[in-house]
Amino acid sequence: MNRYWSAVVHGLTPYVPGEQPKLANLVKLNTNENPYGPSPRVLDAVRAEAADTLRLYPDPGSNRLRAGIAALHGVAADQVFVGNGSDEVLAHAFLALLKHERPILFPDITYSFYPVYCGLYEIAFRTVPLTEAFEICVDDYLTPNGGVIFPNPNAPTGRLLELAEIERLLAGNPDSVVVIDEAYIDFGGESAVSLVARYPQLLVTRTLSKSHALAGLRVGYAIGQAHLIEALNRVKDSFNSYPLDRFAQAGALASIEDRDYFESICAKVVATRTRLVAEMEALGFEVLPSSANFILARHPVHDGAELAAALRERSIVVRHFKNPARIAPFLRITVGTDAQCDALLAALKALC
Amino acid sequence: MNRYWSAVVHGLTPYVPGEQPKLANLVKLNTNENPYGPSPRVLDAVRAEAADTLRLYPDPGSNRLRAGIAALHGVAADQVFVGNGSDEVLAHAFLALLKHERPILFPDITYSFYPVYCGLYEIAFRTVPLTEAFEICVDDYLTPNGGVIFPNPNAPTGRLLELAEIERLLAGNPDSVVVIDEAYIDFGGESAVSLVARYPQLLVTRTLSKSHALAGLRVGYAIGQAHLIEALNRVKDSFNSYPLDRFAQAGALASIEDRDYFESICAKVVATRTRLVAEMEALGFEVLPSSANFILARHPVHDGAELAAALRERSIVVRHFKNPARIAPFLRITVGTDAQCDALLAALKALC
Repeated sequence: MNRYWSAVVHGLTPYVPGEQPKLANLVKLNTNENPYGPSPRVLDAVRAEAADTLRLYPDPGSNRLRAGIAALHGVAADQVFVGNGSDEVLAHAFLALLKHERPILFPDITYSFYPVYCGLYEIAFRTVPLTEAFEICVDDYLTPNGGVIFPNPNAPTGRLLELAEIERLLAGNPDSVVVIDEAYIDFGGESAVSLVARYPQLLVTRTLSKSHALAGLRVGYAIGQAHLIEALNRVKDSFNSYPLDRFAQAGALASIEDRDYFESICAKVVATRTRLVAEMEALGFEVLPSSANFILARHPVHDGAELAAALRERSIVVRHFKNPARIAPFLRITVGTDAQCDALLAALKALC
Repeated sequence: MNRYWSAVVHGLTPYVPGEQPKLANLVKLNTNENPYGPSPRVLDAVRAEAADTLRLYPDPGSNRLRAGIAALHGVAADQVFVGNGSDEVLAHAFLALLKHERPILFPDITYSFYPVYCGLYEIAFRTVPLTEAFEICVDDYLTPNGGVIFPNPNAPTGRLLELAEIERLLAGNPDSVVVIDEAYIDFGGESAVSLVARYPQLLVTRTLSKSHALAGLRVGYAIGQAHLIEALNRVKDSFNSYPLDRFAQAGALASIEDRDYFESICAKVVATRTRLVAEMEALGFEVLPSSANFILARHPVHDGAELAAALRERSIVVRHFKNPARIAPFLRITVGTDAQCDALLAALKALC
């Protein structure tokens, strides 16, 4: 007990991000970064911000960026909220839209930041087990709740829920907010943004960290009807008026606008994923069907922790989760370049 | 009432930042930005980050930047916390260190974000009136409280509290956290960082937005004993693991390291302030003694709102606060370049 700490700080169990090792020749397949760099237009846009104008505050409303995102998705600018990475967007969503009398629902195996936000904001929650095949079963969420949140595709499983199932969840759950965290949707699957116009309780979140290759820039966003976005803005303007610096606003807009480059790197990642899954299976791994830029795989004999440690000795970093116990046998492997995946496969061939 | 909003969202009165007008030929003296650009070394450092490495997450701990700040202030790295602008640092401090049973104390005339944070985190507060001369009286804070926070120099008054008085406050208030918000300390006055080693309840916050001319980069920091910093880190890692993007970390470090440039632009602002105060007084204004990069001034005849509107018509933007009523007669004017101040003085001469 520290007498200067607030009660909530004593009770926190903070999130532990994937390791960001400083070693040079690492094959880094642990935090779902994009193996390809951002669009050249992003680099031009951020270089232009390296100027005297850094002395001035950025636009607190990120209006040009929000207009660009709105145009991309065919929604109005007041249906778009932007934040300092999708983690900040999610944090604001938990406080603004998921804090109610009833517990919120999310899968037992999912993004491990969700229970952390609940701890921060003192939000009651109940986890819903995935099926034996690590799938989300919509029927399990058709029960009174304070809100529902899950990633689609789910993380760290990579499994996609079809859009028709998400619509069934929305139709059967009209009274509380449903957040669909689409951090990985660009690598496969259909976005729920198309449902926003019809469902006032739907909030879809996105990040530029994965498919836009901009993890270093910290930009995420949410799309929902204007009344949900207003709630996020009220929290944002009670927390930090200027969450996106000049580089983040300009770089994100340039990336959103360079659709051809974006599609080309997504297609490359998907092609490599297809090959990686086939070769992992040939090595005897069970690989969950992935619609993301990572796979979750286990070997029938070798344990996840053991393999992760052995790969690390060969300068290949993948992610292993000790908890929950059901995924402890697995490795979560980011889809890298073809060369990185070849290095991984060669190491696994030697180890298994 | 919106049924999807949490109870706290309904009760919020968000902060309203100073206007960021898009007009080109404006004399912008309303948000306390630095009239000089950042160090050329900052521009080099951020340009170097416009690279393929943007695809990778930044260092979640901002370790190089924190080491640079620690070296500057002669403290240990675990006594430094960094955030996405000092507003984010302050937000985390409110939740982590100022949320207790008893109400916290801050001046009735001060940074208007403080009561907003209290609304967001449901923290009880009591405002303490400044003296007739708009000064903080330490004796008023020597009473049981849940914490104390004020800027030094105070905003928007610009008035400085001497370090000996801050030490008297700390000595008489050992049981709760005292946050000294030094957003403007580099323009005059002695920092309370020198007291951190002796007072376990002291947290000092800083921003690079004003004296470092980096409002567009969004970097602030806090210095305190390690146990206070740990509380901030627990909240930060329960909210957003990566609050500073690659540009913010690199640019802020370069600015911290270019001490000569920093001192030269601070000296220029202080010299212009001295001249501006003298000439405003010659025009009949009462100007509060300022240790900041802005002044608070009132004319014996002309009202603050009236003058602000008339200046705006002449493309000169200053800030006017309707509340609290005691400062409604005043204008808060950022110290600009000599040329900007000449433009302001000429306009005031015509108006008054």
